[in-house]
Amino acid sequence: MSFTLHGLGVSAGIAIGRAMLMSHATLEVSHLTLAPRLVDKEIARFDAAILAVKSELLTMKENTEHAPAELAAFIDIHTMFLEDPELAEKPREIIRERRCNAEWALVQQMEHLVHQFEQFDDPYLRERKYDVVQVVERVIKELLGHPGRASLKAGKQTKEEALIVVAHDLSPADTIAFKDHRFASFITDVGGATSHTAILARSMAIPAVLGLENGRALIRDGEQLIVDGMRGVVIVNPDARVLEEYRLRKEQIELEKTKLRQLKNSPAVTLDGIDVALYANIELPGDVRDALDGGAEGIGLFRTEFLFLDRGDMPDEQEQYEAYKKVVKGMGGRPVTIRTFDLGNDKDLRPDNNANDRVKTNPALGRRAIRLSLSEPKMFQTQLRAILRASKHGPIKLLIPMLAHAHEIDQTLAALEQAKSSLRGEKVAFDENIQVGGMIEIPAAALAVGIFLRRLNFLSIGTNDLIQYTLAIDRSDEQVANLYDPLHPAVLMLLAHTISSAEKAGIPVSVCGETAGDPKLTRLLLGMGLRTFSMHPSQVLKVKSRILKSDVSELAPNVRKMLRLDEPAKLREALEKLNG
Amino acid sequence: MSFTLHGLGVSAGIAIGRAMLMSHATLEVSHLTLAPRLVDKEIARFDAAILAVKSELLTMKENTEHAPAELAAFIDIHTMFLEDPELAEKPREIIRERRCNAEWALVQQMEHLVHQFEQFDDPYLRERKYDVVQVVERVIKELLGHPGRASLKAGKQTKEEALIVVAHDLSPADTIAFKDHRFASFITDVGGATSHTAILARSMAIPAVLGLENGRALIRDGEQLIVDGMRGVVIVNPDARVLEEYRLRKEQIELEKTKLRQLKNSPAVTLDGIDVALYANIELPGDVRDALDGGAEGIGLFRTEFLFLDRGDMPDEQEQYEAYKKVVKGMGGRPVTIRTFDLGNDKDLRPDNNANDRVKTNPALGRRAIRLSLSEPKMFQTQLRAILRASKHGPIKLLIPMLAHAHEIDQTLAALEQAKSSLRGEKVAFDENIQVGGMIEIPAAALAVGIFLRRLNFLSIGTNDLIQYTLAIDRSDEQVANLYDPLHPAVLMLLAHTISSAEKAGIPVSVCGETAGDPKLTRLLLGMGLRTFSMHPSQVLKVKSRILKSDVSELAPNVRKMLRLDEPAKLREALEKLNG
Repeated sequence: MSFTLHGLGVSAGIAIGRAMLMSHATLEVSHLTLAPRLVDKEIARFDAAILAVKSELLTMKENTEHAPAELAAFIDIHTMFLEDPELAEKPREIIRERRCNAEWALVQQMEHLVHQFEQFDDPYLRERKYDVVQVVERVIKELLGHPGRASLKAGKQTKEEALIVVAHDLSPADTIAFKDHRFASFITDVGGATSHTAILARSMAIPAVLGLENGRALIRDGEQLIVDGMRGVVIVNPDARVLEEYRLRKEQIELEKTKLRQLKNSPAVTLDGIDVALYANIELPGDVRDALDGGAEGIGLFRTEFLFLDRGDMPDEQEQYEAYKKVVKGMGGRPVTIRTFDLGNDKDLRPDNNANDRVKTNPALGRRAIRLSLSEPKMFQTQLRAILRASKHGPIKLLIPMLAHAHEIDQTLAALEQAKSSLRGEKVAFDENIQVGGMIEIPAAALAVGIFLRRLNFLSIGTNDLIQYTLAIDRSDEQVANLYDPLHPAVLMLLAHTISSAEKAGIPVSVCGETAGDPKLTRLLLGMGLRTFSMHPSQVLKVKSRILKSDVSELAPNVRKMLRLDEPAKLREALEKLNG
Repeated sequence: MSFTLHGLGVSAGIAIGRAMLMSHATLEVSHLTLAPRLVDKEIARFDAAILAVKSELLTMKENTEHAPAELAAFIDIHTMFLEDPELAEKPREIIRERRCNAEWALVQQMEHLVHQFEQFDDPYLRERKYDVVQVVERVIKELLGHPGRASLKAGKQTKEEALIVVAHDLSPADTIAFKDHRFASFITDVGGATSHTAILARSMAIPAVLGLENGRALIRDGEQLIVDGMRGVVIVNPDARVLEEYRLRKEQIELEKTKLRQLKNSPAVTLDGIDVALYANIELPGDVRDALDGGAEGIGLFRTEFLFLDRGDMPDEQEQYEAYKKVVKGMGGRPVTIRTFDLGNDKDLRPDNNANDRVKTNPALGRRAIRLSLSEPKMFQTQLRAILRASKHGPIKLLIPMLAHAHEIDQTLAALEQAKSSLRGEKVAFDENIQVGGMIEIPAAALAVGIFLRRLNFLSIGTNDLIQYTLAIDRSDEQVANLYDPLHPAVLMLLAHTISSAEKAGIPVSVCGETAGDPKLTRLLLGMGLRTFSMHPSQVLKVKSRILKSDVSELAPNVRKMLRLDEPAKLREALEKLNG
């Protein structure tokens, strides 16, 4: 019987192949009470397992020379977790105090850590809980004496057919284990757009659909599957007609990919000769390679939250400076826009302050990003000084997240002046004319954009959060994610208003949310007047290809007309015409 | 030494008097393990305490004949809690299972309930946790053998001076105990704008400042205090000049109050003859009296969440019908706008569904209000049928919260049609032409208001949520509450845009958020074109007084000019001029 499953398409493309179900060791370990004399032995057993997994990860890393940079980065993260006292020491204490078995102690501590990660407001940090689970899973397997990887049953695979991994969740280690298999796609029951499975799939250019919920239960080993990573759809046992249709689309996509690669070195210019700048958004210093490979002319958004990954203390100035310098140097003179911390209201940030360590009901509406930075002057000064110091190595711009009020901008600029003045006092070199920009990601900022234009050097529209607040939708909440709509007339109004206001004021404006990387929206944004786009490295050439085929003088009047429509159905129709 | 404390001004007015510190029995009870034979005895002791407190509350209620309706309502709520198996039965089980003392069992269960209440998205429901704590506190006092109320120490009170209650928190029962004292104000360390202390203070027209955090620690018994409930300020040991200033302001306020009362029966008409409609927002059927006493011409917003107070199951159709009918009948032919449930993503709503019972990270951006109603068709049909049935008793309008998308409006209207059609089938009478309106409380709704104007009969702007989303601020989060600003230029733009769009389309529009009840904003709203205001009953006459002194023909051009400003400082200046 043919049926269709819907999930989250996190990496575009089409795969056709046979299901390969992955079984995992369960984390449901039993609880044993130990005789007092066995406690030390149990701790030794725990230490041995941690060591074994660490060396296993090390070996793995040495074998990933030609694997994508993300894979090595994830192995590093897992290794860091293993070295962290929270995982390496705490379970020892639990074993001693409760006289319990190592497996149970480890799972207790894992649950505690997972809970802590769930408190993060930042979705990237929040999803690191899956990394904790995977590391622990590895150690448990080691403890239980079957350290092998998830077993694969290839079912009725024939030579011609690709394999599609069907799993509850994947660990980077699992992915390496699959290296010798031909796998065409991942589909999993859990995971979001920023889970490592998603990031890996995108960097490997493999289609992936996550969050299927019941995929593993409904799909049988060896069944034929079509994975449509763009639409987030998995078709199980497709009929001949559907199969044929998807085969054609797949061929088309591959043809287009080849064509895209040829665009890497040509400039992004419209048919009527308008230059467009295409930048990349990156999360880690190591992403610079992807940005350059992908054809980006600079970094439009360098998120700095990675500095807080897997640690309880604050990253110091030198550490931050080194990280920022690495990116600037890596980009070899191309512009780099560094965004200051967009961290949520998270107790772990300030180990010395226990007064506020209860979880907020609505962290997205709480003290996050610049609000937190302004309330933590020491942390903010450290970051500003590190960014300023890095600015002597290349063209850095400073980007401030989550601004909404005039006084917040004024306070931020005063803080920057303070950092500059302290560096001057110490005779440390930096770019005196560093450009300062504001993220437009709160509806109030887009509406009262004049406040920003009079105070800042540039604007960057963060569509992800802007849409979230404009529609009052948390898109990481699967109960309402379907209401998240980048084409809601209100969203388009705010985009158009911000872009045209900036244009009139002669202030550069870019879009750095996902909207910028969606080729279906490229013409719409061009028609609104946008000339700078920043996006995931994998999208740059797709958007460039659109730009090369667009004529702004023709688009602009149509987009103006389109923006007068406020019925969603009519808007969609007009967009199709624009793209057609 | 004179010093000033800042808190949340929840009830306006000025009080000058001596501090009266209130001491509370602590809830830090000890844990005892009982011999098995003592368990039954302990349960009997627990039952006796519950009974004693219940009868005490009953007596109290009989003595509140002339007290405000809220007081009786809160005693009812406390009595309900005492009768609820969660408080009356669960601790018995805990005593039996864990062989512990009654105090400890009760506090365990209290903490469990408090945690459940904290999951509510609705601030009104969330604050009911304080009621749980207070009821439990009463029972603990009874168990500990000193059932008396919080002790009062009047300090150096002189005959002429009023008393100001300084407490950690107040229970309604405490308030009754104070009846024989002259008290001029409450100030407490905890509590928010919708805590019962706040509601009581407003209904008693006593100034109150809550959330002082350290008031009880810093203020000494008998010290002279000035409480400014408007500004949320408490001045301790004021100097002579400040004291004199506040005495004058207090006299002025009292004079104005007397004048206000004389306005009750005069129509709300501007100097240039424009009629304005002033309605009340209510939370409970019992609030109808306050609405009429306060001079309201109808109910502009009847919140229906009270139906879920203190219960695990769903209120059935008949119960809802009776509640709605009571309000419509009570208003004697005046219009009543009933808003469908604005409930958060709360597991308690659906006892039969355990799949979704984890807490959401951002409930304000989740499946709340109409999103929840549309996903729970049975619950929604029950409420729609109950409202329709009540509509035969008087002019009811139906108001839908949290709409943002065209398809949500279409689905809501289809659901209403279904409810109507089922009633027709059963030959049950209702108002076939019931008016349906949408709350404008999401930025997208205000921006793309055309979607609403083409589908609905009226609009109601909920400024509280609209401001919250426009600024990305949860104002119940004290870490960012200072960023909540009704005068942010973006907020004014959305208000003006919604009002003028509705006016052009010939669709009635009202404002029902707190902005409508703030006399400082009355002229601004009149100038924007607003002709219908709905607010807390206590504000109606204050706003009416403003209206009687306003000339729209003069205001309108000034407001138009003002709305072209987007610098906060200039806007504030213009508003002062408008009010001056």
